[in-house]
Amino acid sequence: MTARSSERARIDMLARVFGADGSGRTIVGIGDDAAVIGPGKEPLVWTIDAQVEGIHFRRDLVSMADLGYRATMAATSDLAAMGATPLGILAGLVLPEDVTDEDLRAIAEGQHEAAKEVGTQIIGGNLARGREISITTTALGETPRPLGRSGAKPGEVVAIAGPLGLSAAGLVLIERGRAEEADAAPAVRAYRRPVARIAAGLAARDVASAAIDVSDGLARDVGHVARASRVLVVLDPAALVTAELTRAAALLGADPLALALHGGEDYAVVVTVPEDALPPGFTRIGKVFPAEGRSSGVALEQEGGTRVPVEERGYDHFG
Amino acid sequence: MTARSSERARIDMLARVFGADGSGRTIVGIGDDAAVIGPGKEPLVWTIDAQVEGIHFRRDLVSMADLGYRATMAATSDLAAMGATPLGILAGLVLPEDVTDEDLRAIAEGQHEAAKEVGTQIIGGNLARGREISITTTALGETPRPLGRSGAKPGEVVAIAGPLGLSAAGLVLIERGRAEEADAAPAVRAYRRPVARIAAGLAARDVASAAIDVSDGLARDVGHVARASRVLVVLDPAALVTAELTRAAALLGADPLALALHGGEDYAVVVTVPEDALPPGFTRIGKVFPAEGRSSGVALEQEGGTRVPVEERGYDHFG
Repeated sequence: MTARSSERARIDMLARVFGADGSGRTIVGIGDDAAVIGPGKEPLVWTIDAQVEGIHFRRDLVSMADLGYRATMAATSDLAAMGATPLGILAGLVLPEDVTDEDLRAIAEGQHEAAKEVGTQIIGGNLARGREISITTTALGETPRPLGRSGAKPGEVVAIAGPLGLSAAGLVLIERGRAEEADAAPAVRAYRRPVARIAAGLAARDVASAAIDVSDGLARDVGHVARASRVLVVLDPAALVTAELTRAAALLGADPLALALHGGEDYAVVVTVPEDALPPGFTRIGKVFPAEGRSSGVALEQEGGTRVPVEERGYDHFG
Repeated sequence: MTARSSERARIDMLARVFGADGSGRTIVGIGDDAAVIGPGKEPLVWTIDAQVEGIHFRRDLVSMADLGYRATMAATSDLAAMGATPLGILAGLVLPEDVTDEDLRAIAEGQHEAAKEVGTQIIGGNLARGREISITTTALGETPRPLGRSGAKPGEVVAIAGPLGLSAAGLVLIERGRAEEADAAPAVRAYRRPVARIAAGLAARDVASAAIDVSDGLARDVGHVARASRVLVVLDPAALVTAELTRAAALLGADPLALALHGGEDYAVVVTVPEDALPPGFTRIGKVFPAEGRSSGVALEQEGGTRVPVEERGYDHFG
């Protein structure tokens, strides 16, 4: 294969990488005007997400395979947050001239691996040229009961499935050339190979009143739930910081709690559920209260019971 | 509104522009992790398409509203080619810093208008920053009988619904500053406001053996059908050139037949159907023959009956 094949050769190569195992409901896959999926009986859940070079990733800090993997998981994570099972994925790739066939194959292999990991496939897509790499991924799923952001009720607990802060720590560790250190491994893996929490979303589906995935950071994403539900979410700082995060943060001289609150791209799923209905795989991290006065939002419970409002901002990776 | 609002304010603005008229099967629209669509009984048809600045359009030659309109129609056209009815559209926008709120609103208004034109809505999307404008559009539809590229049979006729060559002529007329001339009007409109032929796709659905939309140029797109079906398509040159195209081509000193064969982005729908089953709204442009020797492909019928192979290339807009 030359460094840059024709578009047709590239699409043939992608069709081989993405394969088709005959399972699922795909009727027509790669190679026609559009993909075709067999009908179902449940509501469809449908999302789109973009990863743009220089904004969402730096080419020097992530391999092409990891890039494909991350882009696919980022989109699929929205299905997890809605309690949906994936039906398929389409990938729109914008690639500069200097992206070789080998790069493209690595991106596709990462996408394929991520899709397989969450029980689905890449069933179509689009190739276009551009000045910067961008991967736009659209994922389709279904669920009898789509979870939203707006149902959280005072008295419920807030629970999480998946890591917090590790992905952000991993990126900074890679940037600082410390990815090889033993204490860095879980964080670096969390950045390179995040996992959409499909099983957790399904486990929570019948009991959760609200759900969201942590893409922009816990404070900001839980803030969306708090505002949409008009409640105050009070988080327990001790429940947010794991031993793995503490060790990764120590390598960076960073505050593990800040990473847990503001680091994004972990793709953990956060739900609000009745106190006695914590779904399997979830850990309790806080509680839902009535909005105080006019302000819904997010607060931390300090020792002694004081509540401190949490700023709903992302983590400044390169700050 | 300032020149660049926060992402949240921009999403609120988009939600207002895209609206929601309560029709259709949308259960959850803009503002949650994903869109939700009610279940149906027919196979789903699903496509993704990108319009990238400098590749698919030049910012100085297209208004923001036309850009949004064209991007939406380009994606929806794949549904027309499959004989599907649109269920909804998600739009992934990558926007440089210099794209103002006013620009974004114009893009969204163009998208909204195009979606309305084909009987559907923008029900979600994603906003990201980047160095160049790119609009990635994913469209979902359904049909009891998805049309493919591979069913064309010798003896059938080839028929088209929609313009040929006008969009390419329109772009060159705009580029040369001749968009205001009377004979340019149909071509300029075809470029700025192409129409996905949803009704034509539905009309052809129960009789067509194969279908495709003309995005890359008739020769190239019909070539896909010919190869997938292992047939030879012979086109009638006299049927390809309309009076409108002849007048637009004359302004450019261009060959109208070359524009008809190689000009893309008209989004006409081409089908192969039995001789006695031409669907309403379609014009006959050629015939299907057995592949000659080993070569499937596209040829032109010359006067006297000679067949000349057609090169399956696109039109060189800026050549």
